[in-house]
Amino acid sequence: MLIIGENINATRKQIAEKIELRDTEFFQSLARKQVESGANMLDINIGDKNPEDRATMQWLVKTVQDAVQVPLCFDSPYFQIIQAGLEAYQFSCGQPLVNSVTAEKDRLKSILPLVKKYHCSVIALLMDENGIPDNAQDRFSIARKIIQSINDFGILSEDIYLDPLVIPVSTDSSSAITTLKTLTLIRENDPDIKTVSGMSNISYGLPERRIINQAFLPLLLETDIDALILDPTDQKLMALFYGSQALLGKDLFCKEYLQAYRNGRL
Amino acid sequence: MLIIGENINATRKQIAEKIELRDTEFFQSLARKQVESGANMLDINIGDKNPEDRATMQWLVKTVQDAVQVPLCFDSPYFQIIQAGLEAYQFSCGQPLVNSVTAEKDRLKSILPLVKKYHCSVIALLMDENGIPDNAQDRFSIARKIIQSINDFGILSEDIYLDPLVIPVSTDSSSAITTLKTLTLIRENDPDIKTVSGMSNISYGLPERRIINQAFLPLLLETDIDALILDPTDQKLMALFYGSQALLGKDLFCKEYLQAYRNGRL
Repeated sequence: MLIIGENINATRKQIAEKIELRDTEFFQSLARKQVESGANMLDINIGDKNPEDRATMQWLVKTVQDAVQVPLCFDSPYFQIIQAGLEAYQFSCGQPLVNSVTAEKDRLKSILPLVKKYHCSVIALLMDENGIPDNAQDRFSIARKIIQSINDFGILSEDIYLDPLVIPVSTDSSSAITTLKTLTLIRENDPDIKTVSGMSNISYGLPERRIINQAFLPLLLETDIDALILDPTDQKLMALFYGSQALLGKDLFCKEYLQAYRNGRL
Repeated sequence: MLIIGENINATRKQIAEKIELRDTEFFQSLARKQVESGANMLDINIGDKNPEDRATMQWLVKTVQDAVQVPLCFDSPYFQIIQAGLEAYQFSCGQPLVNSVTAEKDRLKSILPLVKKYHCSVIALLMDENGIPDNAQDRFSIARKIIQSINDFGILSEDIYLDPLVIPVSTDSSSAITTLKTLTLIRENDPDIKTVSGMSNISYGLPERRIINQAFLPLLLETDIDALILDPTDQKLMALFYGSQALLGKDLFCKEYLQAYRNGRL
């Protein structure tokens, strides 16, 4: 199970400020804290302000990799920034992940050459030029189309993570159900393809968001999802992660749950 | 959705002692607290020590009904005790529930006449003379058998709550999955039959049991279950209940979730 720590994300104001200050200690501490809390990959996002800001991405990758030995997930709307990250990346930490492509042709054409050149895995979001379909069957059709495009490029299915996307439940009551159904459709029809979901968007616009996120977690895990993008420093959420895995028969003899208990993480 | 408060249960030592002391104030306060926290039915269990102790059951029913106006769920291994409870019951509070029958003939023969006479609904546990089957299909076969027996007695399907039973996940890794599959099989095949589950047995034998119970809640609700037996004074669990209902599209416009937020219950 891949737990991708989401905390180094400059679309949050505090993180953007710390990047501006080149605060090495802050990012190394945040990286360590996420890994100690259970993340086995870290997302790196320098925001969407400047497609030319290669130096910032490279500084952040080096800073984080000087602190922790987990692989990174490169998250940017600009292929130039992803490329900069990959150029600076120490591959001894493991295969990096590129976040993300969609079914949109321009995006595929700019990102897939990087994925191939650097032997990355890649997250594909189930949306196309027309946006995000509102039902599971149509999202699954996009999945089929994207898998084909990526395979045609010579990238193997085992390197693809499909993200069915999550619309806030405050704007669409059936949003979580649609995401869960899409994940189940993928698992039933393409067992080789991996699945991933960000968690926190589901609760956007509601008070006490963490409760909605917590309720979403066991449901996502029940779909046999391969990776989650979340805040691993949320101890309550991680406790529910261990509890859910034990409950769903994915943690035989509750071994990891009991380990987390002994380490004071429940 | 029926939330059955489980707290008045003399198999817990403190409750047994308070019954021994005939502590009216304690039980009225516990009843009120459960209802204020979201229970819309209360389970009443005086323990399994004495099948002749009609007076205790009748005192407890009167005590609780003097405090709250919700229907009660009569929980005893002895039909004599259930009968005593029903004799003392004020039916103006709504239809009572009898907890429980199994596929065992003796139990059906002693309990169903009471269910019929007093127009109760009844919880049927999916076990028979051979115990609890270890897979969903066999539990569902027992469900079919029990429904038939109860219907043959002239009791309608709409008055039946099936409880698929929960074995601790510490003794069987597939336990939660089996319970969830059984609930789904019932819902798909017999949409008129209601379903119910106790929650807390799932975590027996593990540390930090509340985490396992919390993870179980969204998964149970996803099966479209009709009733839950739980501790409504566990604010965290009830918060997750409201969050899960919003998430699963069972709380349109997140109305109840937002109401719970405004009432300080999240």
